[in-house]
Amino acid sequence: MLGKTYDAQVCSIARTLEVVGERWSLLIVRDALFTGATRFTDFQRGLGIATNILKARLDGFVEAGIMFRHRYSEQPELFEYRLTEKGRDLVHALVALTEWGDRWGAGAEPPILYRHSCGGSLTSQTVCETCGVVEDPTEVRAIPGPGFAGTCAPAAQ
Amino acid sequence: MLGKTYDAQVCSIARTLEVVGERWSLLIVRDALFTGATRFTDFQRGLGIATNILKARLDGFVEAGIMFRHRYSEQPELFEYRLTEKGRDLVHALVALTEWGDRWGAGAEPPILYRHSCGGSLTSQTVCETCGVVEDPTEVRAIPGPGFAGTCAPAAQ
Repeated sequence: MLGKTYDAQVCSIARTLEVVGERWSLLIVRDALFTGATRFTDFQRGLGIATNILKARLDGFVEAGIMFRHRYSEQPELFEYRLTEKGRDLVHALVALTEWGDRWGAGAEPPILYRHSCGGSLTSQTVCETCGVVEDPTEVRAIPGPGFAGTCAPAAQ
Repeated sequence: MLGKTYDAQVCSIARTLEVVGERWSLLIVRDALFTGATRFTDFQRGLGIATNILKARLDGFVEAGIMFRHRYSEQPELFEYRLTEKGRDLVHALVALTEWGDRWGAGAEPPILYRHSCGGSLTSQTVCETCGVVEDPTEVRAIPGPGFAGTCAPAAQ
């Protein structure tokens, strides 16, 4: 994964990108979440991705605890890749990334809509505990948290 | 950017990753948003990133409308890179990615906290128009939207 080059960046964004920031990673998670893809051939068919890259991503996901390998055939021995709770929890970031793409992408109409299991429309919102939904990005500040080690760089504001 | 390899993926997640999914991209946006970085040397100092890569990312951001170049010196002619409204709007996705990193990263304590300009804590939430906040990722479905062209693959559920 991206670990080595991001080592000096202790911020949780950097840590997240170490795991899911490589080319194709989030599209693999997307297919696992929303198309029910579990087998190597499912992902390959859905994404048209080179087998060596797909293998590296899936192995990396297992190592990072985003997926686990489940043996679905003994003879021949075959495995599928299933999302863990940690992997499924990426759905919130995917919804936020999708909304940005919908708002600012070239296409006029959203290709995908997110729905709650009740049928209701879903949106990703940045919410203030006091004021409610925050629309204006300039109202968002970053401050050092308890795990801040001096390299996440929000302090220079 | 990643365009060519993602061409077949019309999903808004893929479109978003074409613009901000390359190595270092979101960390550059992070520094622009939260440290006030605008000059080439600001980003280089904050990230320790190779100059050719940083140059490519910043030029790509300008091309994608995430940043614009602003001349801050005439003699010598020097430019800084400032976020556009489109670029600043990435803050919502960054908050969502950070929260995932905080929940699932190795570190015990969050290195960065997000605050509203009022001082209140901020969180990223996936919200159903009917039920309110959706915590459980398995309650999120993706369905084809009006711009669906058959390759975003949520239909096979």
